[in-house]
Amino acid sequence: MRLVTYRGSSDSRIGVVLAGDRVLDVRAGALEDIVGDAASLASVREAAEASSPASGLPRIDELDLLPPVRPGKLLCIGYNYRGHVPDGEDPTANDPAYPDVFVKTANVLIGPNDPVQLPQVEADVDYEGEIALVIGRRAKNVPVSTALDHVAGYTLFDDVTARDWQRHGSQFTLGKSFDTFGPLGPWLVTADEIPDPQSLVVEVERAGVVTARQSTATMIFPMAFLVHHLSQVMTLEPGDVISTGTPQKLPDAAATHRSLADGDVVAVRVAGIGELTTRFTTITEDA
Amino acid sequence: MRLVTYRGSSDSRIGVVLAGDRVLDVRAGALEDIVGDAASLASVREAAEASSPASGLPRIDELDLLPPVRPGKLLCIGYNYRGHVPDGEDPTANDPAYPDVFVKTANVLIGPNDPVQLPQVEADVDYEGEIALVIGRRAKNVPVSTALDHVAGYTLFDDVTARDWQRHGSQFTLGKSFDTFGPLGPWLVTADEIPDPQSLVVEVERAGVVTARQSTATMIFPMAFLVHHLSQVMTLEPGDVISTGTPQKLPDAAATHRSLADGDVVAVRVAGIGELTTRFTTITEDA
Repeated sequence: MRLVTYRGSSDSRIGVVLAGDRVLDVRAGALEDIVGDAASLASVREAAEASSPASGLPRIDELDLLPPVRPGKLLCIGYNYRGHVPDGEDPTANDPAYPDVFVKTANVLIGPNDPVQLPQVEADVDYEGEIALVIGRRAKNVPVSTALDHVAGYTLFDDVTARDWQRHGSQFTLGKSFDTFGPLGPWLVTADEIPDPQSLVVEVERAGVVTARQSTATMIFPMAFLVHHLSQVMTLEPGDVISTGTPQKLPDAAATHRSLADGDVVAVRVAGIGELTTRFTTITEDA
Repeated sequence: MRLVTYRGSSDSRIGVVLAGDRVLDVRAGALEDIVGDAASLASVREAAEASSPASGLPRIDELDLLPPVRPGKLLCIGYNYRGHVPDGEDPTANDPAYPDVFVKTANVLIGPNDPVQLPQVEADVDYEGEIALVIGRRAKNVPVSTALDHVAGYTLFDDVTARDWQRHGSQFTLGKSFDTFGPLGPWLVTADEIPDPQSLVVEVERAGVVTARQSTATMIFPMAFLVHHLSQVMTLEPGDVISTGTPQKLPDAAATHRSLADGDVVAVRVAGIGELTTRFTTITEDA
């Protein structure tokens, strides 16, 4: 089931995306308020299954999509995809012992069709296309073996990054947390549709050129481990988002990389989840 | 004016702390909802000034205090107080060019009388007593000269830290973000009572022994600069908290430091703001 949150005439609405990308309005609210509630999700599923042919419904591109959830915590993982090594070498040789975790603040979050605003104070803006998992059931001290039971589903995230600001200190926070630096969406795909999140291929495209393509099988810390690990520290709540790291840029793309500029478009694509396409724009900043 | 948020019988209440530490209940709600609203604050002030002798009101220690605000962003500053240097040496010689900023996640936040729960998975828990400023008026791209106009007031914060987890990677996040690792309070002192936040003395005490005592005059990045700097990146919203860094431990305290343990008590004290006293406790963690 693909679930969206979008702006209704007077409130935010939850919808199910049906065949032909038509959206069935199922209720007011926001996904983070129901992803932890099995009964609510079941009633949404029933409504979707009971709906008549979808042709009378609005198409998804007619709707003003909001971020599928507004997470109380937006946790991101640094280096988490192994690089390519020559045959015979151990690809795990350079694995860190622990995931490197950072936070993006709430002001970064934008809907899947909203543009990222390029700040005037940063000359080197980069993209990082990622799979983001959304917590469904509260998690504290959960073992790896049952960690994915706490995941409501998956969506896509662009961990937009201001590289100069990121390098200003030891902590990534400011380089990661400019307003609008977090497009999320387009929808939440419920976990039942992704039986094995470690066999997905993440593809990132800039201006029509694939710049990264890597399987989640090459993740250093699989998603179940991430949920387990984070839950040793913090109570994960329904709607919390863990963005699971970006695949490495392909050698050509890394060699020719330049800062994102006005009009650039980046797409993140994962078969079984969907595609998140983001436009970058310059702005006149507020005084 | 000293403002508290506390648990009422059916909702959270905002109160003004009057003479004798009696609390006048002024309205339902939470401070983050009114600190950005001059009219609401003025009406609170009027109610306080109009109140009759306070002896019939509850004492503050009879109330279940909540964190004075629940910030949408809880931003913390790393190394921000200069160490002592011998006479004749430049105390600013080792100043970093930019503040090091990190985030503590929402799950850390506890009220000023709540205990910090020591996690079983960490052997080296430390305290960091700090002045926290609370944003009152939205701030984006504000100059240093007017930055403090966006500050509603000041409170105290203990940036409790799990040193082993902090050292697990390059990012401090997890070591900083264990559940309950953020006591805040006891109250918000409105900014009009602190004409110069760079002339306050922060004193930190453990088990009755002063372990840090340093003036905010020795801050590397003054509070006005911090607000300016952060506002270049993110829109700061009413209720957002910037904890401004911890003074350095005195040499004796640093030399004899050991992890916080069950029953330990740490106090953070600043004349003109107040005192935040926190008890540390072991817990049986939830499965």
